[in-house]
Amino acid sequence: MDIERLMADDRSRVDARLDALFMRAEAPSPRLDAAMRHGVMVGGKRLRPVLAYAAGRALGASDTALDGPAMAVELIHAYSLVHDDLPAMDDDDVRRGQATVHRAYDEATAILAGDALQTLAFEILADTAHPRLPAMVTSLARAAGRDGMAAGQALDLDAVGGHPDLTALATMHRHKTGALIHAAVRLGGLVAVAEDDERLLALEQYAAAIGLAFQIRDDVLDVTGDTAVLGKASGADAAREKPTYPTLLGLEGADAKASALVDEAVTALAPLGEAGHVLASLARYMIERDH
Amino acid sequence: MDIERLMADDRSRVDARLDALFMRAEAPSPRLDAAMRHGVMVGGKRLRPVLAYAAGRALGASDTALDGPAMAVELIHAYSLVHDDLPAMDDDDVRRGQATVHRAYDEATAILAGDALQTLAFEILADTAHPRLPAMVTSLARAAGRDGMAAGQALDLDAVGGHPDLTALATMHRHKTGALIHAAVRLGGLVAVAEDDERLLALEQYAAAIGLAFQIRDDVLDVTGDTAVLGKASGADAAREKPTYPTLLGLEGADAKASALVDEAVTALAPLGEAGHVLASLARYMIERDH
Repeated sequence: MDIERLMADDRSRVDARLDALFMRAEAPSPRLDAAMRHGVMVGGKRLRPVLAYAAGRALGASDTALDGPAMAVELIHAYSLVHDDLPAMDDDDVRRGQATVHRAYDEATAILAGDALQTLAFEILADTAHPRLPAMVTSLARAAGRDGMAAGQALDLDAVGGHPDLTALATMHRHKTGALIHAAVRLGGLVAVAEDDERLLALEQYAAAIGLAFQIRDDVLDVTGDTAVLGKASGADAAREKPTYPTLLGLEGADAKASALVDEAVTALAPLGEAGHVLASLARYMIERDH
Repeated sequence: MDIERLMADDRSRVDARLDALFMRAEAPSPRLDAAMRHGVMVGGKRLRPVLAYAAGRALGASDTALDGPAMAVELIHAYSLVHDDLPAMDDDDVRRGQATVHRAYDEATAILAGDALQTLAFEILADTAHPRLPAMVTSLARAAGRDGMAAGQALDLDAVGGHPDLTALATMHRHKTGALIHAAVRLGGLVAVAEDDERLLALEQYAAAIGLAFQIRDDVLDVTGDTAVLGKASGADAAREKPTYPTLLGLEGADAKASALVDEAVTALAPLGEAGHVLASLARYMIERDH
């Protein structure tokens, strides 16, 4: 199985469905819809949807049943990027070679577009009318809000220019990026099985490990990566005095930590047997990717 | 029945429950929690929770079952105020005599606090584990997002300094404030009855009429009200060249329109019989209030 091919297929699948959300004859505010679409269709690896599909399939869910959760996690991710880019946050003018939403539109519209993308995530999730919707909404909300991503971003704001230790850095990343990666895997799993299924617990251990491995790889690529391949300026973390794994562990130490986490993730998949192979390949991809 | 007393009781009830959301031993980011609490506990009439309670009780729901929906609609309202006050939006430093969230904290924290308040609304709603949760999430999301409040705010941004006609003004308000008032009533109703219950449809007609009446009264109070009683500067709309009902209809015309809408709302309550009396009093309160 070619993992890059599978990722490309899932990316196409979710991109088509996300784009279709904005093909409607009448929007109350066409400008708001356009700004939202700009924030979503900027591209990217669509890693969270890919993980939701892979986790759900591993437990027997159909692709169709997984579309809603896959879209929902990506909409949350997209909203967070729109708000992260705002002048009061990271103040970025460009994302993946395109103007950020507040540059392409205006700041007020970017705030509203991010807000409405978050709302849309919950709307799309509710549209699935899945019997385990309560658990799904709870999981997505905890991952996105003050116990997850939003808290991680608040911790990140506090950390810039500071000197957090490894524990503080891990806590920040577990919230900022780990929580939503965890939710992507968990929502995919919940499409197929109940909350107390041991395979779901296995998936969650897997998700916790790859979430952190993903972030460490991001930090390493910020030091060693090629700006053209990354699609963003390398060295940005150092320029902002952001604490990173390479600054705390050295490049080799950071690579070793990421490898150990991927081993942990693959081990956690044992209860899934053969069905866990794609997820294992995705875990390895996390630390081998060059962008 | 003393409608002001009932409103005060419901306000106390929901305030205690909202405040309790922020009494937790450990928050991942205590600063984020504090900023969120600041945005929620700034006070106000808690009109949306009052309507959710009244609508639900009219159809037989218990207060306890209504707490979640009542909190959820207020959390959405609170998030919208935090973001509305931002420099890129209305740029307000003071709300109800207190510093706005971005003034009391900082702009980035205010953006995150608003974001996390929206998330918390859906989390609290999911916690109710109500059998009609899918319809509730859908209703709240449609009311808050690109088909509701967020669209209304986008239309409002476009309208400042422009010359919209009465239809455009009504469309803006139906989205900006009407949609969430509608959701408050509908969520309360859904706690008690199914989506196709004719009494729910009656409640929705009621909600549409009072939502607009509420806004017209707001516009009138902005012209005629006392700054000290209002808790915000009167004349603010005119200063911002915001189109309003009094500018389009005159003060008398605006009052007459609001009265007609309240009559329409009360008439719509007929299928509820005696059970609709509190809702009828609330409708009258909408146009008699002085703040």
